[in-house]
Amino acid sequence: MNHTIKHSLARRWLIPLCASLALSGLAQAESPTQPSATQSTTPWMSGFPPAPERIIRNSDADFFADEKLRWTVCHMQELLPTKILHRGLGAPSTLEYQLDSKLDQVSFTPFATQDSMTWGEAFATNYTDGVIVLHNGKVVYERYDGCLNEQGIHASMSMTKSLVGLLAETLIAEGVIDENALARDIIPELKDSAFGSATVRQIMNMTTGLKYSEDYSDPEADVWKYSQAASSMPKPGDYKGPRSYFEYLQTVQGEGKHGEAFAYKTINTDTLGWIISRSSGKSVVQLLSERLWQPLGTEQSANFTIDSIGTPFAGGGLSAGLRDLARIGQLMLNEGKFNGEQLIPSAAIQSIRQGGDPKLFAKAGYDNMPNGSYKSMWWHFHNANQAYAARGVHGQTIYIDPTANMVIVRFASHPKAANGGNDPTSLPAYQAVADYLMK
Amino acid sequence: MNHTIKHSLARRWLIPLCASLALSGLAQAESPTQPSATQSTTPWMSGFPPAPERIIRNSDADFFADEKLRWTVCHMQELLPTKILHRGLGAPSTLEYQLDSKLDQVSFTPFATQDSMTWGEAFATNYTDGVIVLHNGKVVYERYDGCLNEQGIHASMSMTKSLVGLLAETLIAEGVIDENALARDIIPELKDSAFGSATVRQIMNMTTGLKYSEDYSDPEADVWKYSQAASSMPKPGDYKGPRSYFEYLQTVQGEGKHGEAFAYKTINTDTLGWIISRSSGKSVVQLLSERLWQPLGTEQSANFTIDSIGTPFAGGGLSAGLRDLARIGQLMLNEGKFNGEQLIPSAAIQSIRQGGDPKLFAKAGYDNMPNGSYKSMWWHFHNANQAYAARGVHGQTIYIDPTANMVIVRFASHPKAANGGNDPTSLPAYQAVADYLMK
Repeated sequence: MNHTIKHSLARRWLIPLCASLALSGLAQAESPTQPSATQSTTPWMSGFPPAPERIIRNSDADFFADEKLRWTVCHMQELLPTKILHRGLGAPSTLEYQLDSKLDQVSFTPFATQDSMTWGEAFATNYTDGVIVLHNGKVVYERYDGCLNEQGIHASMSMTKSLVGLLAETLIAEGVIDENALARDIIPELKDSAFGSATVRQIMNMTTGLKYSEDYSDPEADVWKYSQAASSMPKPGDYKGPRSYFEYLQTVQGEGKHGEAFAYKTINTDTLGWIISRSSGKSVVQLLSERLWQPLGTEQSANFTIDSIGTPFAGGGLSAGLRDLARIGQLMLNEGKFNGEQLIPSAAIQSIRQGGDPKLFAKAGYDNMPNGSYKSMWWHFHNANQAYAARGVHGQTIYIDPTANMVIVRFASHPKAANGGNDPTSLPAYQAVADYLMK
Repeated sequence: MNHTIKHSLARRWLIPLCASLALSGLAQAESPTQPSATQSTTPWMSGFPPAPERIIRNSDADFFADEKLRWTVCHMQELLPTKILHRGLGAPSTLEYQLDSKLDQVSFTPFATQDSMTWGEAFATNYTDGVIVLHNGKVVYERYDGCLNEQGIHASMSMTKSLVGLLAETLIAEGVIDENALARDIIPELKDSAFGSATVRQIMNMTTGLKYSEDYSDPEADVWKYSQAASSMPKPGDYKGPRSYFEYLQTVQGEGKHGEAFAYKTINTDTLGWIISRSSGKSVVQLLSERLWQPLGTEQSANFTIDSIGTPFAGGGLSAGLRDLARIGQLMLNEGKFNGEQLIPSAAIQSIRQGGDPKLFAKAGYDNMPNGSYKSMWWHFHNANQAYAARGVHGQTIYIDPTANMVIVRFASHPKAANGGNDPTSLPAYQAVADYLMK
């Protein structure tokens, strides 16, 4: 990613955004070198002090590129200001285990190849940091590597969006938000922004018509201005631009009509986060704590990166524990119930499960999702099993297969940001595990 | 504090250090205005967005001064990079409650006055954010205000030092560290520093002879260079100075002889943290997690501010939950046992409880601690009850009274940094509560 950045001020500013930016499936940026999928013998940031060549600082332009990524994904809080997503004070809920060692031998054929590969082999191939599989509500597989272990949190990237989408669907089901309302009727400050004339639903489904480029190879792309606005680092004295997500979102101009095509633009989620907060009076972080982390009995508090006024990065700021996202996946699978209790209205989950409009999605050209759609910030495969997923760059996923009654959560640090890098050896693997579990 | 800072680069850099710097009892810096001890009607950082005049950014030179302090002390993680101090994944240990509402009426006479005040009145007078009292191992009083509630963490300031001192005593009791070793024999990089010729014990008791000024009114004081080295924020391109605690500590020059007087200098604790980490192979944060937070069954993960290479600020970087520090206080009172289990060698606690040499301490001139001493980063009153304490600026304390079998933990945001500001209405209050409980 760093080789596309043209001037040093931008470097300083954009790093915090790159660090958690939500490029899922869109960005073409990738590392010029392909680091090894197995851990280096000399760990990053180890020793007192670490060896100079193994130090990662937040001032390093490449802290989220190349091999450093493998450390950074578990250590966002050590590089940037973050907001705690509290788990509460009680005992965590129990996850039942029924481990199945035969899963490692399940084989599949990666996209565009003839040679088969096993689930166990795909683990390293995909630079997996942690993966957990639940079947019929029980953990059948769990494995860690890289910077992660059971007591650790990992950048969730754009999976963050899906949880924000879930919050929005919840507030719609509860009558707090009207999905047909225009954004400017909820947030008057958006009246001169292209968002102002979009409905909440269009924003949730990313079918807004926005003049906004996430092309990282273009130094003039809007995403760089966004990153400057979003950075929580002190700005140079002569900086005159927007200083928060909210200030930036008011400046977005339109291009095309709303509602005509899906176009993956992270700023939709930050606008949705604003709508949620203005409507509920609570930050996205507080709501996720109250609605999910606390009632689910999660094991670990999570956190969000924030802008300089404390706004959580709804588009990609979450770092969380693997098992805790598995609890959320199980809640989705159970239509809002967890351990027998209805925590989220079933209507919210049902709305997500329906999926979006594949015709609007097709215009975006995702080769690995030929029948796909996007609804409420969730990706829908519209395959035989009606699987859908939260997805984030570098290989993050919460993959929900209602037919196989299976949830897979995977954290990874694949050097290629776009999921095109790991989909060929992960999507068919998920299907193969589903087939195996359904036997 | 902000009115003493002369130039803008220093402002940018020193803020992160000021934010958690350990001035306990020494610094004379104080706020030019005395904010109200009760909460403002318009909270800081509330709303989407907050009102412009209620925003606190990490680039604000005064984010740790005046009224803003009342918010900042609970939100260090939102302003600076931090390292998680993991609590573990299990259920928290049970704290037994036997609340005694009569405590609010316990009266005492503040230092240098004739008029009595009650414990309940002192709560607001001292800008208390949270206070908990344990007697015979049970919680008899607990109250929150300001930015804190039971699910929240608060800056511990120099109380951090006492926990680092406890780690050092633990490793000494276990034979990992020799208290008579010279620092340079443990850390060869310190051979040209004044620390090199000091023993571990002298560093632990702050009886080192160091040319180092913490005079905040002097823009040339060493503390500003230290703050530049310690900051985790990106540095200007032309910065040539030390870039970490470790680099700075190697540059400290001597003044006077080691072992002749107590002089409160935060850099001793950061050197002790280095000695602990080099000797154990673990960071202070990891050790506190393994030795205290996890086995004690704490309720909340804590965190530490860090320098740009991830070194935790041993001198003052901890933010933690009130009840969790109460668990540590109870462990101290029980000579290393908690819920019947010996977690820390009793020899470590006994060494701390002995206290230091009041003759060496007297040279530092603490009016409110006439018979005091300092040992292993703990403050000793040498009063009738043999009370001792962890103390941090703005009113933080873990006050342990072995005679009354009482522990008091208090978090506060008194606008005056030096504890001289709140000692008159807190130290005699602690004694009065002890007297009441012993009746």
